[in-house]
Amino acid sequence: MAPDPGHPREGAEVLCIGSELLLGNILNSNARWLAEALAALGIPHFRQTVVGDNSERLQEAVREASRRCRLLVTTGGLGPTTDDLTTQAIADCFGQPLELREDALATVMARYKAMGQPIPASNRKQALLPKGATVVPNPTGTAPGMLWAPRPGFVILTFPGVPAELHAMWRQTAVPWLRQQSYGRGVMVSRMLRFWGASESRLAEAAAAELAQTNPTVAPYAGTGEVKFRITACAETRQGAEALIAPTQARLMDLGGSSVYGCDDDSLTRVVLKILMERRETVATAESCTGGGVAAALTAVPGSSAVLLGGIVAYANAVKHKLLGVSTADLEHHGAVSPPVAKAMAVGACHRLGADWGVAVTGIAGPGGGSASKPVGLVVFAVANAQGAVTVSRRWSASRGRRWIQAVSVGTSLDLLRRQLLGLDLENAWV
Amino acid sequence: MAPDPGHPREGAEVLCIGSELLLGNILNSNARWLAEALAALGIPHFRQTVVGDNSERLQEAVREASRRCRLLVTTGGLGPTTDDLTTQAIADCFGQPLELREDALATVMARYKAMGQPIPASNRKQALLPKGATVVPNPTGTAPGMLWAPRPGFVILTFPGVPAELHAMWRQTAVPWLRQQSYGRGVMVSRMLRFWGASESRLAEAAAAELAQTNPTVAPYAGTGEVKFRITACAETRQGAEALIAPTQARLMDLGGSSVYGCDDDSLTRVVLKILMERRETVATAESCTGGGVAAALTAVPGSSAVLLGGIVAYANAVKHKLLGVSTADLEHHGAVSPPVAKAMAVGACHRLGADWGVAVTGIAGPGGGSASKPVGLVVFAVANAQGAVTVSRRWSASRGRRWIQAVSVGTSLDLLRRQLLGLDLENAWV
Repeated sequence: MAPDPGHPREGAEVLCIGSELLLGNILNSNARWLAEALAALGIPHFRQTVVGDNSERLQEAVREASRRCRLLVTTGGLGPTTDDLTTQAIADCFGQPLELREDALATVMARYKAMGQPIPASNRKQALLPKGATVVPNPTGTAPGMLWAPRPGFVILTFPGVPAELHAMWRQTAVPWLRQQSYGRGVMVSRMLRFWGASESRLAEAAAAELAQTNPTVAPYAGTGEVKFRITACAETRQGAEALIAPTQARLMDLGGSSVYGCDDDSLTRVVLKILMERRETVATAESCTGGGVAAALTAVPGSSAVLLGGIVAYANAVKHKLLGVSTADLEHHGAVSPPVAKAMAVGACHRLGADWGVAVTGIAGPGGGSASKPVGLVVFAVANAQGAVTVSRRWSASRGRRWIQAVSVGTSLDLLRRQLLGLDLENAWV
Repeated sequence: MAPDPGHPREGAEVLCIGSELLLGNILNSNARWLAEALAALGIPHFRQTVVGDNSERLQEAVREASRRCRLLVTTGGLGPTTDDLTTQAIADCFGQPLELREDALATVMARYKAMGQPIPASNRKQALLPKGATVVPNPTGTAPGMLWAPRPGFVILTFPGVPAELHAMWRQTAVPWLRQQSYGRGVMVSRMLRFWGASESRLAEAAAAELAQTNPTVAPYAGTGEVKFRITACAETRQGAEALIAPTQARLMDLGGSSVYGCDDDSLTRVVLKILMERRETVATAESCTGGGVAAALTAVPGSSAVLLGGIVAYANAVKHKLLGVSTADLEHHGAVSPPVAKAMAVGACHRLGADWGVAVTGIAGPGGGSASKPVGLVVFAVANAQGAVTVSRRWSASRGRRWIQAVSVGTSLDLLRRQLLGLDLENAWV
């Protein structure tokens, strides 16, 4: 079990355990979440593996990882059923017996007590850990994890497969421990800058110098219509890391201009709702090709009822006319996908619902319905308030597909509202 | 490189290549898609691995897999840039040089010709394959894959990381080849039965005998509000497999009763739209707590404009009154989340938009806004047509969270419409 001398252990690996992953039953969101979490701590991450609920294959994967990496993070297989093999298999790998741990049992029993239930006999199994392992408490479920160094220079961290439990345990126990152990080589601080309406390639070209930096590092992330740049700095202290981030953040924000809409956990929806709440203003929507997607995005955020009065999904032209007051002349003369109709829809939403702001989207999401002058991918947006209305037309490639065009149209309408709320220039938007 | 005699090669493994996966930049949807695709072919699948764009680590992963499995499916790293290492690394693993393949070059050039562009020099790289490999054509992108048996009993299939390209190439080339090679041990046929409004645990209990079967196998799959059972049979011929599936399918459909809404690629949305299209009837929505989600789900399907006239998102009570004609007496007396208001909303949607059918949802998605008599998780649904209206109330646990309650409410409203369209009994629905 000695590491290959020509191949020293380095970085972290993630091992996800569960036959349901190999059957395609569920998406492995834990692997991505951990990848981001490791990146945020500055811990290099070189491999992810998935195996089923099979002790032999699980042991093989753990044994291999123990030769390659310094830190192995596992998810899944910590439950009370016979399918849950992780702790036993890991202990077997290193020839360590399991022992009943009173501290682990106490955390399992506390959970059952909180639920007002007696602890089932099968759950005692969850308090069995190899000797020398530290309990990783689970604040939201019954399965504790463990932190164990079965070999010098090799640590295993185990978590349940339930995402909410993994997240809570990671934040509460793993992050402080990993920081303290300098797995991340000092204190790592990450900032995600979010842009809407900027071209990723133009931004990346302009930020070539920043992308080549080593501390802080800058990495562009993909999104549907959105561009994200993560800045990660490493220093002795948090203040030191923040100080390293600041000039790069300022430079990227300068490059992004009005397309920078927020950072970290911000979303366009949250940003727009926050501005409206602060101003005690209301909004109503008028949607054709997004079919309710803009209203649904706003209502997905708790508390949005203080701001969103409602909306009208005007898919049919008769509905645009009857419920939003779009003139039949405009519909006939300019067509449903046109600036005059978008404007009339936004104004109609304001008036009919009595809102301060109206947002309208009308376009051709495809695959059918396009023409030479109005191709699939053409979408027209409008935002109106008592002072007037502004319209913007965008044309995306039809090859993007209906869902993508709809999703990016939802974001673009919210971004147009954001720009109008903040009085931002539309000149350089959506390059 | 001989397989360990005590450990014969078996089954398939998936190897996804891309540093963006290890940075958490994107979710590994390809791994799940391939897991389902392998399961559908009846090919046992024992491990998934992710490595970055690093030739050494990539070779290590391929070499390991070559000792364990019969079939290795890779995604990613087939592009024209220097980051794209997959083909070269795999060839290096087995000491085979790459050669320029005219057939591969022809497919790459054909793509560029179709786009009306000259082929860039860097893309010639995509036509380099190890000797003896078969080209897997890419009908939708420039990167062809390969099918190569570098060792007896060990085959590698490579695909690009772009999901649409992987899917098209898998269906066009991999599926017929794998079937022909009997990787799936005969002909495998799979049928996914879809239920809405049934309890997964009750259904699984009632189907205990079917779940214990070996040919066909029956596996329950998780979904948001939906229950799915996949039946997979293996036989000498497709007809033989279909014949094995038939009695189990009939039995499960019998157990599911009116909750069986479709199979395979059906969705509630598609099923409802199809029925409406056949009947040449139209629908309009009236939504409160789903905030446009029902209309957005319908408009996500191409061609829905023939059926969906539009909808009203009536988040504020004033909007329910003004745009849907809900009486202020009903709103005051029964509250916004009540059968009389749901009914008035559905009737209002019919009348105001001139539709044959109206669907309404009003509820408390939380986390705020609940009370003792109207707790978070209470949602009331109504469906109306010219003959009248029907309402149904559901109460989900607040701990499910806002997004879940909204998503399941969208499905439940569509299922209520389906049941009304088909004249199904509501007695045993949503147990």
